[in-house]
This record gives sequence, C-alpha cells and structure tokens, in this order.
Amino acid sequence: MQALEQIKFNEHGLIPAISQDFKTGEILMFAWMNRESIELTINKKQAVYYSRSRKKLWFKGEESGHAQIIKEIYMDCDNDAILLKVEQIGNIACHTGRRSCFFQKYNNNDWEKTLKIIKKPKDIYG
Amino acid sequence: MQALEQIKFNEHGLIPAISQDFKTGEILMFAWMNRESIELTINKKQAVYYSRSRKKLWFKGEESGHAQIIKEIYMDCDNDAILLKVEQIGNIACHTGRRSCFFQKYNNNDWEKTLKIIKKPKDIYG
Repeated sequence: MQALEQIKFNEHGLIPAISQDFKTGEILMFAWMNRESIELTINKKQAVYYSRSRKKLWFKGEESGHAQIIKEIYMDCDNDAILLKVEQIGNIACHTGRRSCFFQKYNNNDWEKTLKIIKKPKDIYG
Repeated sequence: MQALEQIKFNEHGLIPAISQDFKTGEILMFAWMNRESIELTINKKQAVYYSRSRKKLWFKGEESGHAQIIKEIYMDCDNDAILLKVEQIGNIACHTGRRSCFFQKYNNNDWEKTLKIIKKPKDIYG
C-alpha cells in the first residue's frame, strides 16, 4: 500500500500509536503498531495493535469485547507516530476497567488514581 | 523524587510522551522524555523533552517561543507512557507551523495534509 510506504517504523518495525475518543477527545491508550497491524486496522476499520510483551498482533477487544472502531487515522509531521480517532466500544479502553489508561495524575510527588472503574477486570476477562 | 521511581523507562532510559491541549483536547505532539526532562517539566511547569536525534534535553519553545505550560501530568496504567495536558503558547506545537503535529490524515491510501500553516517555519526559526 502506497500510504504505508511513507511510515517510518523503528528498528523493531514498530510505530507508536495513540488512540483518542473521536467525540470527547479523551486520550484512551498508548500502544504500538507494526505494518501488518496498520493494514488490518485500515481494512477492518477496527484497531489492531502489536503487543510487545506477547510478541504478536493484538486485536483490541478480542477478549474484552472493548473494540475500537476507527473513525480517522492521522500520522505526525515526522511520519513516526500514529493517532487513531476511535469509537470505544463499552466506553472502557483500559484493562483495569477504566475509560482511559491515563488515570494516574501527578500530584504532590505522587500518582493519584483518577477515573472510576466501570467494570472490574475479572468481570471483563472472566 | 518518589513519583519518578514508579515510572518505567525503556532500555534507553526514555518514556513516550503525548502532549494534549488542556482546553480543546487536541493532541499536539508525540515525543520522548528521560528522567531529567520529567523532573525539569515538573519543576519549571513547562514541557521539557529529550531529543533522540540531537541526543540532549529539548526545552520546548526554546527557539520558537512555542513553549508548553503544564496544566496536568498523567501516567498510564502500565507506568510506561506520559500525557502532558498543556497550554500551547502561540497555538503552534509543530515545527511546520501548524497547531498540531498530527495533520496528515489517512485518505484513500494516501496522507492528506490538514490544518493550515499558521506561521511559516522560516518566520518561526529565522
């Protein structure tokens, strides 16, 4: 695909990816993609990442049901970061059961937990 | 600093950082931080990144004047990504003179340039 040729992957064949709620603008997750996951994301119109820990494609929502429907895809000025504007199914992006993964807020030399747990992980993953 | 001990830096001592306009929610930039840049960001209440190409601290706005005033700092669930909610001075985050670095929109197997150039790079950097 022509558009993919322009993407600059790192030495591991990966590119950083940010997902953002297309309506509220809330940042949901930070993850990584490889070439195949970007192709699948475009074709399926659902977010597919690359899991560095599991060393394989990560079809977001495969286990949890919390898929991300693609609304728009952006690349940054240096062609080395991706932004996915998505509809977050279930309104839960984080494996902790919160809306967003970015719930630890810096406060007075500590990280304060924000955002309520919408669904407990054991109820998400069984 | 206690809060910094919890941050998981990668094998190069770096952590991915996203900056977001604290009012509009627009994602402005993706960059990297090291421990020192995070300490400086907290203490100065202005975004300081680590430039991987220049291999040194990058005081955002140092040349352009387009500094980022810190409103809130978040860390993700895995402690390996940072989100800065900022006030973007000059309303220009990108070195191309645009509001955000994420202006290339995927469209029909190509990247379409969006967002107008507010100020030409030569007028920013001289």
